[in-house]
Order: sequence, then structure tokens, then C-alpha cells
Amino acid sequence: MFSTDTYRQRRAALRKAVGSGVLLFLGNDELGMNYEDNTYDYRQDSSFLYFFGQPYAGLNAIIDIDNDREIIFGDELSIDHIVWMGNQPTLHEKAALAGITETLPAADLKPYLDKVVAGGRKVHYLPTYRGDNKIKLFNLLGVKPGTEQPSEEFIRAVINLRNHKTDEEIAEIEKACDVTADMHITAMKMLREGMREYEIAAAVEAVARSRGCRLSFPTIATVNGQTLHNHAYHNIVKPGDMLLLDAGAETPEGYAGDMSSTICAGKKYTRHQKDVYDIQVAAHRAAVAALRPGVPFVDVYELAARTIVEGLTDLGVMRGNPYDAVAAGAHAMFFPTGLGHMMGMDVHDMESLGEVFVGYDGKPKSTQFGRKSLRLARPLEPGFVLTIEPGVYFIPELIDYWGANRHLGDFINYDRLDAWRDFSGVRNEEDYLITADGARRLGKKIPLTTEEVEALR
Amino acid sequence: MFSTDTYRQRRAALRKAVGSGVLLFLGNDELGMNYEDNTYDYRQDSSFLYFFGQPYAGLNAIIDIDNDREIIFGDELSIDHIVWMGNQPTLHEKAALAGITETLPAADLKPYLDKVVAGGRKVHYLPTYRGDNKIKLFNLLGVKPGTEQPSEEFIRAVINLRNHKTDEEIAEIEKACDVTADMHITAMKMLREGMREYEIAAAVEAVARSRGCRLSFPTIATVNGQTLHNHAYHNIVKPGDMLLLDAGAETPEGYAGDMSSTICAGKKYTRHQKDVYDIQVAAHRAAVAALRPGVPFVDVYELAARTIVEGLTDLGVMRGNPYDAVAAGAHAMFFPTGLGHMMGMDVHDMESLGEVFVGYDGKPKSTQFGRKSLRLARPLEPGFVLTIEPGVYFIPELIDYWGANRHLGDFINYDRLDAWRDFSGVRNEEDYLITADGARRLGKKIPLTTEEVEALR
Repeated sequence: MFSTDTYRQRRAALRKAVGSGVLLFLGNDELGMNYEDNTYDYRQDSSFLYFFGQPYAGLNAIIDIDNDREIIFGDELSIDHIVWMGNQPTLHEKAALAGITETLPAADLKPYLDKVVAGGRKVHYLPTYRGDNKIKLFNLLGVKPGTEQPSEEFIRAVINLRNHKTDEEIAEIEKACDVTADMHITAMKMLREGMREYEIAAAVEAVARSRGCRLSFPTIATVNGQTLHNHAYHNIVKPGDMLLLDAGAETPEGYAGDMSSTICAGKKYTRHQKDVYDIQVAAHRAAVAALRPGVPFVDVYELAARTIVEGLTDLGVMRGNPYDAVAAGAHAMFFPTGLGHMMGMDVHDMESLGEVFVGYDGKPKSTQFGRKSLRLARPLEPGFVLTIEPGVYFIPELIDYWGANRHLGDFINYDRLDAWRDFSGVRNEEDYLITADGARRLGKKIPLTTEEVEALR
Repeated sequence: MFSTDTYRQRRAALRKAVGSGVLLFLGNDELGMNYEDNTYDYRQDSSFLYFFGQPYAGLNAIIDIDNDREIIFGDELSIDHIVWMGNQPTLHEKAALAGITETLPAADLKPYLDKVVAGGRKVHYLPTYRGDNKIKLFNLLGVKPGTEQPSEEFIRAVINLRNHKTDEEIAEIEKACDVTADMHITAMKMLREGMREYEIAAAVEAVARSRGCRLSFPTIATVNGQTLHNHAYHNIVKPGDMLLLDAGAETPEGYAGDMSSTICAGKKYTRHQKDVYDIQVAAHRAAVAALRPGVPFVDVYELAARTIVEGLTDLGVMRGNPYDAVAAGAHAMFFPTGLGHMMGMDVHDMESLGEVFVGYDGKPKSTQFGRKSLRLARPLEPGFVLTIEPGVYFIPELIDYWGANRHLGDFINYDRLDAWRDFSGVRNEEDYLITADGARRLGKKIPLTTEEVEALR
């Protein structure tokens, strides 16, 4: 945990921003995998962690702004718990580390909220993403699952704080990035033809675990890099393949790293692989060079998209004016993802609070294929931490789907495309902090260019 | 998946056992860790897997016994899904592998059940252990979360099938046990003083992952083996420590292994460690020798408990008649856990369906401390697969708690106990199949005795 003052200041800023009412924080509980007690690796809700610390199940909290009370609700351990789980500080002691002096039994939360509601005061709550917490809202406030009405003031106030990382948070993120970099470097050194994807995943994940970290998201380790969220790991890496690895660590404090790399199965990339890879690197570098406060990230996305269109035009699979191609969304055939996302306590930071608020400051998102996947568009501000991850993908299903009626044929040269349909995909990803006058890469550097990767092969 | 006939036969046996009504199977959905799309490693519900295969989120199924219909409800993939997740067989194709010829859109389930209920027929469902499925029951059948009334006929019929493992299941469990054994052997070879517990956990878990398996339960890797469900991993292994490792693999088919070992930090166990370790091995061997059809497992538990009492009497920390000590529950100061549990598709097999049905055939459980943790008591039958895992623990908090009023002082020599309070604990665990005339250890053998472990150090 950070210092007690950190949590006190965060809550004070939040109280001031929302102004009145009661802020309800639903902590995460344990989740059973295949029965109740066979639990997944416990993870507290990030906003709960941000304002209260307490990486423990079974807690909820409120900030009663009107009455200047901050309370964590939860039960102390019984002797049975202690025998099974070991001795621990009391809830009261743990809460004090975050500057919370009032703790009450779990069962006291409902009567407290009943009084608030009976008194005509507002209970603000955040969006829920777990069934157990939807049921809690139902039991506490009578909100039927699926009819939640989270508080926009609460959401915006939390986002405005969490979007701006402090120095102590940046130090934590850099720790996560250092471990994340070593995960990728390990893969670059160990990958050999004939291995199974899951052997690489195992080794990469062991790096995080052996440094006391967890994974910040499910690893992607695939020879089918064109499948964007591929969580299959059973393929054998064959000569001429590339392995796309997207993996990251989360520190015990709860901060994430997130990097991607695309590694040749053999000692060297093939000529064709290098051609596409270099396009991705050019887009990557153009994007990084454009990062500074005030620049709308959507502009950086468009710059990366144009760079990819230009490269693919040289390759012969695109044509026409790059600005027009990007405006029409033709780049999305090869670059259907966003360029990057906010990163912090969540690898897609605060995704549960709504991308439109986090990345668009409440402004509407595009519905165009490709562009709709851009999680971040707003003007950049110092303290933002984000990923840069352009990619170039050849997706057979999408080639067939668009190709059936030569969709955007003014920009896509379908005749030349067929030769590339089994290429797979390339992505590299790094993490950046927006500084006062530009941007700084976070954590240890991982190889970016083909030459840099080949030096480790 | 197993052969189509396997699933057909399982469902036919289930239909026959329950006799009438509609059996509702709620499949597991994805679970968000810290936001909806940052999902934990997906795991289908084991009973769903057992009767339908289909390790995929978003499915539910029914067996309408009265109308001889078996239907899987779920939606086919859109082009967006395919771009992100890769091309896959259709739901209809996947269902056919389990002999299911009827698939319907997810939204058709509620109207189907509405008609069943309107017609006065019974909808049987199993206990739920995930919030999302409680909400599903609420939406489908109007059952308020927390007021579920699972069908005992359905539960008993499922348990009676799943409790008896077939040859093809036993082969899967042996695969899991082989990987599990290698996890332990890896730890025995690599453990060194000065390592962190999480370094061992990382290496052990990487063995499972690199063989295409997942973990069957959260690893315990601790120098505080007396803390029974210890999921902290940050301690440094110091000279004179023992590391208690309880870890297992689950095969892609969904079958579990579960073993424990207790490894000396240095090359050899100390004299004191060996004294306690040998007591555990004696209990372990006595229990294994007693396994055969017809023997109530509670008798095997009592035999192990008496063996531990006898050993601790020789050590000077217990006294009196071992039968009386076990009847009074005095052994539970040092052996507060059960002796073992059923194992199959769940590492504690079917725990969600109710231990009383799985392990007690519906008969009541003891409420005595220690004995109440025995998950299995019923007479053994051929085809049962279970763990054997007696342990000897010195739990400071329990010593203080009982010691405050010399609880069961006729059997526990508190004057001698204080010298042992920081000993920690010893457990070894293996997996057994009950055969026609005895029992067979499953999977590769791991070192059991101190000499066998020391040979790998």
C-alpha cells in the first residue's frame, strides 16, 4: 500500500468533486471457478484499491459526504478462519493503514443505506461487472440486475483522479513494465520451432509469478496473430511462423504493464515478414513521436493508420490517397484495432467505468468498423499512461467478408491481397507516460525492430 | 472430448434416474477479474462438461425428459467475434460432437421454460456457485438470489454417475496425476534456501502450463504449512524451514490431479522434522493399506487419526488411549483436516452439489472440530477416486485457543506442546482409485518418505 496520506487525499478530492450524498464502493468477493471454494486468484476492485487499499474479499465501503463519515464494512475473522487462513491483522488495523478509523460489521451496511434512502439522500454507485456485486446492489438497494443506474458524477470524479497518475503510481507502473519487458525478452530468447504455444506462455507467465507479480490480463501467445484475442495455445510453432506475444505483469500493489512483440520462429524474419513488420514499426514510431499534451489521441491514431496505409500501398495491397482511405475506414481491413488505451490499475484502465468517459471525456465514439475499437481519443494530458500498439493483420475471414463485394475497393487491391491471406499479423506494443512536453517510455526497453529481435534469436 | 456415445449414455442414464420433468443445466459464463472483458481463465461447469462437453461460455442446456428433447441454447458467432476470436465450428457442429442435434438461440430458453412451468411440469436445477448463474435463475424462473431450491433427485442422480469413474475418465485422471507428480518433483529438485515461495509456485505452475494443462486449484507453496489454506507466497525459505506444496494440474478435458509434499529447505530434514514427518507417513501408509470396497472412509480417517495420536504420544505431546482421544476429537489439534476427498472433474469432486450427498450419501456430517472437515465418510465403492492426505500440524493460534483452558488436556500434553509451537506442518498427498479388491495409486509416484525426498535434494 501507499502511505496513509495518499488514500486520505484521494478520498478528499473525490468528496470535493462529487459534493454530496453517499458514495458506495462494492468490494470484490472471491469467485469460484468450478465450485464456490475453488477460487480464482483474488483481485480487489481497482477503485476500491485506489481509495481504500484493502486487497481482501468480503468488504464494502461508503463515503458519506454529507456527514463526513468514511466506513469500511466487513467482519473480523473467526478462529476457524485463522486456522485455515493464518493469523492476520484485524479489519480495524488494516483499515487504519488507509486512514479509515471506522469499521462496522458487514450486516450494518444495509440499515445504513436504508436510512440514507429514507432521508431522501442519494446513494451513488459505480458500474458493476461481477454478478455477485449486481446481487449485492439488488439486496442493498433493490436494484434489479440489469437495471443498474450508476452515478455519472461519481464515475467522472473517479476517472478524473485515476486518469492522472502520480509519481508514486508511475513508479509502480514502471515496476510492472520492467517485469513485463523481461517476460517478452524471455520469449525472444527461448522460442524455437517445434515448441507448443503453451510452452512459451508457461515460461512467460512464470517470469511474472517468480517476481511476485500476477498477470495483468490473459496472455496471448499465438502463431495466429491475426486473431486479435486468441486464447488458444495448442499450436506447434512451425518454420516460417511468427509468434505474437501480448502479455503483461501486474504488481502486488495492483498496477499493470502491457507489451506485445512478434517473434520469428527461426533465427531471422523472412523477406515478406520484414516488409510488413517494418510498416508496423514505422507506424509505431510515428505515433510515439506525436505524443505530447494537447494532441488528441485520435489524431495519433489517424497518423498511425495513414502510415500503415502508405506502407501497404508500397506493398501493393492498398491504393489511393491515404487520408481518404483512413477517412473511409479502409485501413481497418489491416488495422481493425485501436492504437492504444489508458493503463493503470486496470490494464485497460477503468474500462468498467465506461470507455466514453475514460477515453473520450464523455463525447460519442465512432461506430465505424476499426475506429469503434479505439478506446482512447481525447486530447492527451500530463500524467496519462497509455499503450502504443499499432498492428498490421491479414485476417482471412475479414478478407472474405469484405472481399465478397469488394468493399472499399478504391483503397484495397483485392487482386493482390490473396497472396497475403495466410501471412498472420504483426503487433508491437510499448507503454508511455505523457509528460509536460512529450512522452516517456515506461520500463525496460524490449526489442522493437526485426534487427533488435534477431539479435536475441 | 470423449466419444459421442459417452455423452449420450451419460444423459440416458441421467434421464432414467430422474424419470420426469426438465433438467436445466446452466453453463458457466466468462468472469471479469477487474472489468468485464479482463476475464479469468474460462472454466465450464463440470456437470455441463460431463453431460454435454462444450468448454465454451454463453451456453445453457436442457434435457426435457417427458418430451425426449435435449437442447443446447446459445448464439452463433458474428463476424466481429470471428475477427477477434478466430474462426470456429458452429454451435450446431460443436453440439453434435456430444450427440446433441437440437440447438436454439439463447433467447429461446426463457419461453421454453415458461411453457414447462405453465404446463405444471417441474424444472430441476442444480446448486449454483456463481453470481451470474444465480441471476440467470432469477431471470429464467423468478428465483430470488439466495432462495434457490435445487432438485435433490437431480443432484443425487448426477453424483451417482460422476462418483463412479469409467476407464476413460481414469485414464484422464492419470494424465493429470502424471503432470501433478512432475510439478512436485520439479519443486523437490529446485528448492533452495533463500528462494521466495513464489519462485517455487512459478516453476511448479509452469510445469502444468507447459504441458497444456491448467491448475486444478490455487497452489499452496508455503513455509507455514500449519496454515491450511495459505495463499501467501512472499516468504523467503530459510535454513531449517520446510516448504509445504499442495498443487495439481487439470487436463484440457477437465480432470484433476491433487498432490502434496513437504520439502526440507536444506539437503536433509532435521531430526525433529523427521520425527513428525515419519508419523505422517505412518498414517498415510495405514490409510492406503485400508482402502478397499465396502470400507467406510470414516473408518480409514479414524485409523489415520489414531496412527497420528500414537506417534504424537511417543513424541510426548499426546497421551491416553488413542481410541478415546480420537473419539473426543483431540487428534484434531494436530490433524484438523479430513483425510481426503473425492476427485474427478472438480478437485473436490462435485463440492458444489453438496458434500453430504457426495461423501456421506445424504447422511448427516459430524459437527465436531476436525471431523466436520472430513469431506468423505461413506463406504468405498469401485470406481471412486479420492485423495489420501493426512497431515500433522502445529498451529500456534489453535494451541493458544485450546490451551487457554487446557481443552482435552487428558489427551493433549500442553506442557510439552510449547516446544513444538513453531514447528509448522507436514502433509503428503497421493491420489487413489478404488478397485474391485483394493486400491491403486494414480499417476507417477512422487517421493513420500524423507529418504526419498532427500535423494532429490
